[in-house]
Amino acid sequence: MPNLNFHPAGRHFLQIPGPSPVPDRILRAISYPTIDHRGPEFGALGRQVLAGIKKMFKTEHPVVIYPASGTGAWEAALTNTMSPGDTVLMYETGHFASLWKKMAERLGLKPEFLGLPGIEGWRRGVQADLIEERLKADTEHRIKAVCVVHNETSTGVTTDIAAVRRAIDSAGHPALLMVDTISGLASADYRHDEWGVDVTISGSQKGLMLPPGISFNALSPKALAASHVAKLPKAFWAWDEIVEMNRTGYWPYTPNTNLLYGLAEAMDMLLEEGLEHVFARHQRLAAACREGVRVWGLETQCVEESCHSPVLTGVMMPEGVDADRVRKLVYENFNMSLGAGLGKLKGLMFRIGHLGECNDLTLMATLSGCEMGLRLAGVPLKGSGVVAAMDYLQSTAQSMARHPAK
Amino acid sequence: MPNLNFHPAGRHFLQIPGPSPVPDRILRAISYPTIDHRGPEFGALGRQVLAGIKKMFKTEHPVVIYPASGTGAWEAALTNTMSPGDTVLMYETGHFASLWKKMAERLGLKPEFLGLPGIEGWRRGVQADLIEERLKADTEHRIKAVCVVHNETSTGVTTDIAAVRRAIDSAGHPALLMVDTISGLASADYRHDEWGVDVTISGSQKGLMLPPGISFNALSPKALAASHVAKLPKAFWAWDEIVEMNRTGYWPYTPNTNLLYGLAEAMDMLLEEGLEHVFARHQRLAAACREGVRVWGLETQCVEESCHSPVLTGVMMPEGVDADRVRKLVYENFNMSLGAGLGKLKGLMFRIGHLGECNDLTLMATLSGCEMGLRLAGVPLKGSGVVAAMDYLQSTAQSMARHPAK
Amino acid sequence: MPNLNFHPAGRHFLQIPGPSPVPDRILRAISYPTIDHRGPEFGALGRQVLAGIKKMFKTEHPVVIYPASGTGAWEAALTNTMSPGDTVLMYETGHFASLWKKMAERLGLKPEFLGLPGIEGWRRGVQADLIEERLKADTEHRIKAVCVVHNETSTGVTTDIAAVRRAIDSAGHPALLMVDTISGLASADYRHDEWGVDVTISGSQKGLMLPPGISFNALSPKALAASHVAKLPKAFWAWDEIVEMNRTGYWPYTPNTNLLYGLAEAMDMLLEEGLEHVFARHQRLAAACREGVRVWGLETQCVEESCHSPVLTGVMMPEGVDADRVRKLVYENFNMSLGAGLGKLKGLMFRIGHLGECNDLTLMATLSGCEMGLRLAGVPLKGSGVVAAMDYLQSTAQSMARHPAK
Amino acid sequence: MPNLNFHPAGRHFLQIPGPSPVPDRILRAISYPTIDHRGPEFGALGRQVLAGIKKMFKTEHPVVIYPASGTGAWEAALTNTMSPGDTVLMYETGHFASLWKKMAERLGLKPEFLGLPGIEGWRRGVQADLIEERLKADTEHRIKAVCVVHNETSTGVTTDIAAVRRAIDSAGHPALLMVDTISGLASADYRHDEWGVDVTISGSQKGLMLPPGISFNALSPKALAASHVAKLPKAFWAWDEIVEMNRTGYWPYTPNTNLLYGLAEAMDMLLEEGLEHVFARHQRLAAACREGVRVWGLETQCVEESCHSPVLTGVMMPEGVDADRVRKLVYENFNMSLGAGLGKLKGLMFRIGHLGECNDLTLMATLSGCEMGLRLAGVPLKGSGVVAAMDYLQSTAQSMARHPAK
Repeated sequence: MPNLNFHPAGRHFLQIPGPSPVPDRILRAISYPTIDHRGPEFGALGRQVLAGIKKMFKTEHPVVIYPASGTGAWEAALTNTMSPGDTVLMYETGHFASLWKKMAERLGLKPEFLGLPGIEGWRRGVQADLIEERLKADTEHRIKAVCVVHNETSTGVTTDIAAVRRAIDSAGHPALLMVDTISGLASADYRHDEWGVDVTISGSQKGLMLPPGISFNALSPKALAASHVAKLPKAFWAWDEIVEMNRTGYWPYTPNTNLLYGLAEAMDMLLEEGLEHVFARHQRLAAACREGVRVWGLETQCVEESCHSPVLTGVMMPEGVDADRVRKLVYENFNMSLGAGLGKLKGLMFRIGHLGECNDLTLMATLSGCEMGLRLAGVPLKGSGVVAAMDYLQSTAQSMARHPAK
Repeated sequence: MPNLNFHPAGRHFLQIPGPSPVPDRILRAISYPTIDHRGPEFGALGRQVLAGIKKMFKTEHPVVIYPASGTGAWEAALTNTMSPGDTVLMYETGHFASLWKKMAERLGLKPEFLGLPGIEGWRRGVQADLIEERLKADTEHRIKAVCVVHNETSTGVTTDIAAVRRAIDSAGHPALLMVDTISGLASADYRHDEWGVDVTISGSQKGLMLPPGISFNALSPKALAASHVAKLPKAFWAWDEIVEMNRTGYWPYTPNTNLLYGLAEAMDMLLEEGLEHVFARHQRLAAACREGVRVWGLETQCVEESCHSPVLTGVMMPEGVDADRVRKLVYENFNMSLGAGLGKLKGLMFRIGHLGECNDLTLMATLSGCEMGLRLAGVPLKGSGVVAAMDYLQSTAQSMARHPAK
Repeated sequence: MPNLNFHPAGRHFLQIPGPSPVPDRILRAISYPTIDHRGPEFGALGRQVLAGIKKMFKTEHPVVIYPASGTGAWEAALTNTMSPGDTVLMYETGHFASLWKKMAERLGLKPEFLGLPGIEGWRRGVQADLIEERLKADTEHRIKAVCVVHNETSTGVTTDIAAVRRAIDSAGHPALLMVDTISGLASADYRHDEWGVDVTISGSQKGLMLPPGISFNALSPKALAASHVAKLPKAFWAWDEIVEMNRTGYWPYTPNTNLLYGLAEAMDMLLEEGLEHVFARHQRLAAACREGVRVWGLETQCVEESCHSPVLTGVMMPEGVDADRVRKLVYENFNMSLGAGLGKLKGLMFRIGHLGECNDLTLMATLSGCEMGLRLAGVPLKGSGVVAAMDYLQSTAQSMARHPAK
Repeated sequence: MPNLNFHPAGRHFLQIPGPSPVPDRILRAISYPTIDHRGPEFGALGRQVLAGIKKMFKTEHPVVIYPASGTGAWEAALTNTMSPGDTVLMYETGHFASLWKKMAERLGLKPEFLGLPGIEGWRRGVQADLIEERLKADTEHRIKAVCVVHNETSTGVTTDIAAVRRAIDSAGHPALLMVDTISGLASADYRHDEWGVDVTISGSQKGLMLPPGISFNALSPKALAASHVAKLPKAFWAWDEIVEMNRTGYWPYTPNTNLLYGLAEAMDMLLEEGLEHVFARHQRLAAACREGVRVWGLETQCVEESCHSPVLTGVMMPEGVDADRVRKLVYENFNMSLGAGLGKLKGLMFRIGHLGECNDLTLMATLSGCEMGLRLAGVPLKGSGVVAAMDYLQSTAQSMARHPAK
């Protein structure tokens, strides 16, 4: 093994908004010997994870699990439902929304890109009224899909998906609704069926606390129907064969067995804690983190109160401060990785991940590292965000120890 | 974790032709904490595996590593180089060659499928003269690629790729040569550059001894050039961005970090042993296995002496014997998984994997399990294949213990 | 990590009579993070393993678990119950019985050593009538304890402990009965309470399938009473404090936490299979092994039909053959470790371990390695023991696959 | 596996002064398959760890490694060198010194217990002048050994061992010097040879970052000579046989193989960082921790400036505060384990461990958990110790990132 910790000692704090730190239970699970993907043990495993993953998306419909990382699941959503030259309405919430649009172009689709001008759109969630307006104008129904990002990993903004659904319905438009919640799933509340989503895209390395390498398409009956007539070439990503073979717990080609072990373990952990408890935990941690940022006198990237992400917090730098220099100081002095500003935001902000298995003291370590790094970089701070976050966490602490008997 | 061994005790023998048993060193390696795929440690890892993987393919040109299982790498080879409606010449060596052809059709290509009739073609390697003949007839050069399988996992036949190259050259045809060595790489000798292959496809879960989940496209300059003009839509699989970012050790999207740890470890193990030693080991084990089959009075699937696979051995059942019943008896009584007959061969044969980390005693255990299973199934055997294999191994044994000082 | 496999490839076969191969589930379990040995989680773990270990010994009385390897548990049994100069009656069944006697001497006791002359006693179990005779002669009851080895790891002979109990009772003698079943426990049937044993000594690295490092004293009320008056100095080994603190699941000093994780997992595995099934499995494997030795034309070390060990088989070499040369050939050529002849038997025999997680195919691999090694050493064999063992296993095979639903 | 984390989510912070958190590299190392402890691989491992461990103690003389936890190594030091009824001069620095004295009594020795009255002695290091005075009075040289604790785990006080050596020398007394540095080794500087120590006792689960289960006696020639005439019974602990067999890398009985894997890995890590760097790191972390305690307005247990431990910090509670209630609040609300006050100090203080792999952010998390817990318990704090520690760490930060090339 190459040495993968360049620091002289101790635990690395991986506080980027994904891949998130993988809990020990899951790391052990993925290291079990690989089994025959055509044998009875695998079938039992397959049926278990296929049943469990529906609970994660809150859906009764099929969820396709790909042995590929998240970008592949974006491609899968598009190639299964679209035909060459189709128009898709996408919404620019940030860097990842932009990458998805770029992919749509590479695949031969015609994306229209809505959004607020400049970086304003990168500080707010999807403005559902813009979508409604555009769809109403599309009287010929040339738009085949509305594609939005639920939790923008590049900004820390979480969009109200139910509002997007309502916008489509108000417009009486037949477009499919496709949602990327790669970084939202299992840390932020998500409801595939209730919100009327047709295809939800997600991945393993965020709220599910797994290494990268598997990704998901949650489907609706309408999406499945669309896949039967869509004309973009598809083979590896094709839903039909997978959904068919999944009935017995198998896949048409070799699945990523060891990550499925991890997925089984991750879902056990999430359901043991309770999904609603998981979501509340992340809301509380995110609130503490924002409290810290506020007291530092810095701005969060997200400026829309209802859209703050429970997954990550984007921290804007004051004019003239290079966020990447702060990150480098934190990395070199305090053995912690933070997320960089991406695309338009490069150097202007950094991102703090508090998703997955994050808890109070991990957040406190993280904010301490940030505060020390900001000071080393000479960023003037109005107060100690660490103290503010600590106050918040202490005042909202509840004894969360589970009873031993449980 | 679900219980993944339905047997009452002891080690499961996974003797299918892949996924192969994953050595302990590799299982430990993949269970190290996931790191930031944008940080300096990852860059060091990336550069290491990208340099090492070239040695595995014996190439000086780029090898693309996908965070996806092998079927994806088939798709990548086609979508990067072909345009809609292109004709590709494929050769039916067995089930996997047939699946690749089916994929080409799904992707909108026009595969021509050469091969000997019936199951004859499934018992022999690629007949290079058939390819040469067909290419000579293609005076308009409508055929854009010749696609063959190096090691047919469904049959145990290994094709002479250099001969296929010579056939193309003799025909003076500009078609690309694409080779699937998913199950051959790192157990059977393979020479991407020397054999003039344009795209080689491989995967992690065979000779590289990893779990499934990463796959490869080894490229030639000609293939790279073709990718700049090919018109099939491609995004996730697109070589250009990956090759560009790989220069510094990174990927354009989230890589399968933990399997890359395993890949680094696997290549260390293979290079410590020496690739030529690895190949010789597998040739010797395969010869012992065939000696056992011969003494049982059974036929190997492969009937061409020069094409026996060092990776697996296909064993034909006598008329009237259901190979899957034998496999089930072996599985239930002796806790061993064997490969099933696929496609045309379903029920007619089973497959013994001796790839990856296989050694003498693992092979002896495997053949013992087969011999007992065959007898339990009432298959008349002419002699003890176990004794024959043992004789072979003993007579060719050399003290292989490494000196402690090494 | 130093490289701990000097061989070029593949799984090492560890077929010594302990440490036995540690199953993957247990290796994963011992690698969980160490916890606070004074916290509530540890108490839950402690109570679980302390309850479970009683089932392993078939006792209702306390079992002391030491954070020390097996030799320590021998010392513990003696120092807790004996006073300086006490006479103990020990019985020479082999090398380990001799080592225990040597220890008694070092501790200032006066062991009397019964046994048959020469190596005869090393080929048979304890002759209970010799013990009865000696005890009857001890009318002053100077003998304070009778110490025997249940399963002699150096020979492959398993003694009838109930018969020893009857001998003591027939003699009407008050001596304590102390039994070493370090290598017997959890592979061979053992009944601490039913057989009236006062102290049973065992260890982790044999039938319990753990690494070495924890060991046991199962007690009787009579042994506990003896410990209150015994005068040998004792502190680390003292039962009183440990038994007292164990009531709540804790230890007076730092326990070997990570091996206790493994113990919990091991007991889960043994109880899932069922102890009686475990014992039957080992009896069947041992019978197959002996059938192999018989057909080779070699002698087992054990010559008493009722005493063959289900744990290991000692194989005598023909005159003039150096058993250690055979072992070296097997090790260097076939990557398998066999047990050496110990003490009086050095070079005269080798030992095949088939304890712990051993199953049919592992035994077949083992016997194949032995047969090839014997031949390489030029030992004349009358027939193929491998074939004989295979016949035995095949004819006694029962479908042991557990139902997936289980 | 039983569930060993009763908390709903995230990493447990194990901030007791040992067992310390075991780094991932070490947990992986101890989970490698157990090997034959009589085979050549083991010999290579044995020689490696026996050579390496001398560097840890800074000695050229033998270090005995026991497959037993630390309390056993105390017993070993005494039984190898003392005879029944011997007088030993021990010094009461805290709870563990008291336990060692109790052990000496149980073993039949006559300990004299020096120390300051009340809890005063538990707040200071060994007062070497008291020892010198007592030894000078022992003109008949009845005192056979001086036994002191280097780093008192129960208090956070580290004694100047060189001063104790000088005291003995000044008195011209032949007593052996025995030192317990169970919790000091490899986090606090220690020099067996330079300081003229005769027997140093240590264990695995502290600065060496291993799980509990192995322990050490570092010897001097004088101690070895004493062991040849000492009369306490000894067998398991006897140095002679172990030192003899260690010459080739083996042990007379079964060693704790898997923990030796971990030891090899741990020593690699410590030597990669550099022992002097390790010591400086712990001094800096301890200083930051004390700065936090000072600003809270609380007292450290240690009141002697030169004796503050780099391993742990004892924190005294104000009158009327139950330290165990604070610990319970911290445990239940913030998923962190702190050390309890022991013996005389029960309920009066808690202990913060910052040994082993501790780094800046782990310490910040720890202090945050303490500060929140203290507040939840209603303890009046004068200021934020978290801010104070952060200031200290920031102002002393140096970029510690290792160059990738290293």
